[in-house]
Amino acid sequence: MSATTITLTTDFGTRDGYVGAMKGVIRSIAPEAVLEDITHRITPGRVAEAAFVLENFHACYPPGTVHLVVVDPGVGGPRRALAVRSGGRFYVGPDNGVFEAVFSADRQPACYELTNERYHRKPVSPTFHGRDIFAPAAAHLAAGLSPEELGPPAHDPLRLEGAACSARPGGLPLTGHVVHIDRFGNLVTDLRLRDLEAVSADKSRIRVSCCGVEIDGVSEFYAQANRGKFLALIGSSGRLEVALREGSAAAKLGEPAHDAVVTITKSTR
Amino acid sequence: MSATTITLTTDFGTRDGYVGAMKGVIRSIAPEAVLEDITHRITPGRVAEAAFVLENFHACYPPGTVHLVVVDPGVGGPRRALAVRSGGRFYVGPDNGVFEAVFSADRQPACYELTNERYHRKPVSPTFHGRDIFAPAAAHLAAGLSPEELGPPAHDPLRLEGAACSARPGGLPLTGHVVHIDRFGNLVTDLRLRDLEAVSADKSRIRVSCCGVEIDGVSEFYAQANRGKFLALIGSSGRLEVALREGSAAAKLGEPAHDAVVTITKSTR
Amino acid sequence: MSATTITLTTDFGTRDGYVGAMKGVIRSIAPEAVLEDITHRITPGRVAEAAFVLENFHACYPPGTVHLVVVDPGVGGPRRALAVRSGGRFYVGPDNGVFEAVFSADRQPACYELTNERYHRKPVSPTFHGRDIFAPAAAHLAAGLSPEELGPPAHDPLRLEGAACSARPGGLPLTGHVVHIDRFGNLVTDLRLRDLEAVSADKSRIRVSCCGVEIDGVSEFYAQANRGKFLALIGSSGRLEVALREGSAAAKLGEPAHDAVVTITKSTR
Repeated sequence: MSATTITLTTDFGTRDGYVGAMKGVIRSIAPEAVLEDITHRITPGRVAEAAFVLENFHACYPPGTVHLVVVDPGVGGPRRALAVRSGGRFYVGPDNGVFEAVFSADRQPACYELTNERYHRKPVSPTFHGRDIFAPAAAHLAAGLSPEELGPPAHDPLRLEGAACSARPGGLPLTGHVVHIDRFGNLVTDLRLRDLEAVSADKSRIRVSCCGVEIDGVSEFYAQANRGKFLALIGSSGRLEVALREGSAAAKLGEPAHDAVVTITKSTR
Repeated sequence: MSATTITLTTDFGTRDGYVGAMKGVIRSIAPEAVLEDITHRITPGRVAEAAFVLENFHACYPPGTVHLVVVDPGVGGPRRALAVRSGGRFYVGPDNGVFEAVFSADRQPACYELTNERYHRKPVSPTFHGRDIFAPAAAHLAAGLSPEELGPPAHDPLRLEGAACSARPGGLPLTGHVVHIDRFGNLVTDLRLRDLEAVSADKSRIRVSCCGVEIDGVSEFYAQANRGKFLALIGSSGRLEVALREGSAAAKLGEPAHDAVVTITKSTR
Repeated sequence: MSATTITLTTDFGTRDGYVGAMKGVIRSIAPEAVLEDITHRITPGRVAEAAFVLENFHACYPPGTVHLVVVDPGVGGPRRALAVRSGGRFYVGPDNGVFEAVFSADRQPACYELTNERYHRKPVSPTFHGRDIFAPAAAHLAAGLSPEELGPPAHDPLRLEGAACSARPGGLPLTGHVVHIDRFGNLVTDLRLRDLEAVSADKSRIRVSCCGVEIDGVSEFYAQANRGKFLALIGSSGRLEVALREGSAAAKLGEPAHDAVVTITKSTR
């Protein structure tokens, strides 16, 4: 049997040794586990950003993987600590919306509250549950513990505000928002391929308007636009993106706010 | 038996391939070792920062772990290269104070100078001992070599200036300094829980003054303060910190210098 | 047998989850492989920077290693996707010059075009071949697949413009360029030890001029210069560098352009 993989996604950065402490705790409990860094550069406290990142990678991993996500501005307060089992994978982190990608795809995830102190690192620091509650839970799951052992079932996990993935009403104009600006300056929106297909059978006949830019048609890949020109395309995560050929759309548009409006109308070209 | 873990802490960044070279050298010598990045973003040449990071994670790892720490502004000069055995763990790096956390807890660490050329990568670059001396030493230790083989015993390893952890004289006012500003903008000081307990039996009756801010009492966790308010608390590493609820204390205080004074007096509230 | 190592070098950053997706795909295909991050901070689209980083680490790894390099501004366009076998190691990435270090050392590398759809992740996103073509290819190679299975032989892989490593004409003055500025602010040039040896038997008798600074002689290591003084030395990668003792040469020289000229003449000192 292969060793179990634990992925790590946090807002801790790496310059303080906090991630190192989590890794050491995991290594002490599950010496055979494979640790893989996803990122430690989530903007401090930005739960929605962590949820977006998780959406992009979690299902690429095989069943049995443990995804540890610690972006936890409410540490020490009343928010619950969770382990979730869904699709054969495990998820460990605070109950604050970071697992939206899981809950939007699985309406009956098995959630457990991490209250069994037997699996906490003692003494539990009131400011660092990542090290003392979440990392041990992930390690024990990787080592084969059943999530039921970590605590009682938890109901109604928190959903991410504004992340509703329900079908949008058909008809034009269709309105969405920029939800993420990626490393390359692409504006990633909350409109998906299925939303566009619901309003137009032909993607070449729609117009995408965002931040004062109007783009006719949806391209397949970046090189379809001329250098320095804007284009709209369905990105690798299945979302509509506004991009700039060999440049940063975000920089050219003056770093638009994360909730900038994107509107779909009929192309008049 | 599980594979041995080697952790890596450097100031190399990752954009030049220097860390990759170290990893490749280790992999060539110890193919079974598990490599875990702690950070490569220590401020270039800042030995005290590396020492602080090591303090935060080294003891979380199980015995047998090899901690490789390369922040080495004196590379090529007369500073010694060391392997240290303490608490069942190994430490490899320059003799410049990076191992202060080890030496402050263990007054009789076993230190060895890495002079046995048999375990150097040839030719040794005078500017990159990380690749040619430290990485091979860490790899050989992970592969089971005894540290005595790497070179003769080394006495009086360098201690970090100003890092004395001896008991402070009791009585108020008590004075300390900011020694680290973490990712979240928390001001971490050199005052520890035991220092506060030595001067006041009741943590709620002390006043913490730092950078013009006065805070009455020591909180348990961030959520105890109101949003946007300063608080003092004992952080996860056991040190007194000044924090801002859901914000960056450092940013609000104009990015104070690393040696800003913190004073403990009796609360008049 | 030890598990095969796959190294990862990209310009993806880590904040979007794109690297996580690649890792998950690899983990699903080659559960025993060892993944090692080299960097994800290559400047977006800067092929030459990736090529330089690869030069610094690739040969430190043992035979059998798979080096995955994804800096791919032409994704979706006509550029080929390659697997290369050279020196017992494998290289996977776009045919855009990232493998210059391999091709400059091995004039007969075995290259294959990744056209066999059996080893693609379906559907292939036109904007993310890292996840859907390159990561699966690297994983299959690590799992033991022969590169011939990935596609037909590819001839005349793209060489990096201006990276010619042919012998330079002897005689002074000798002219080169700054090709990289590293984490410590050292100016790394395209002049190598052999170029200097071809024009002067005695390294102490040459003068290095760059960005208005004149340095007499080539030092062995940083500590040979006085604090705050410039020095020239042969860096760990065998290239001539201009450095500042305990400081950043690049910062002191006003962040010179990457193609700044460096000239070697006879020292008059």
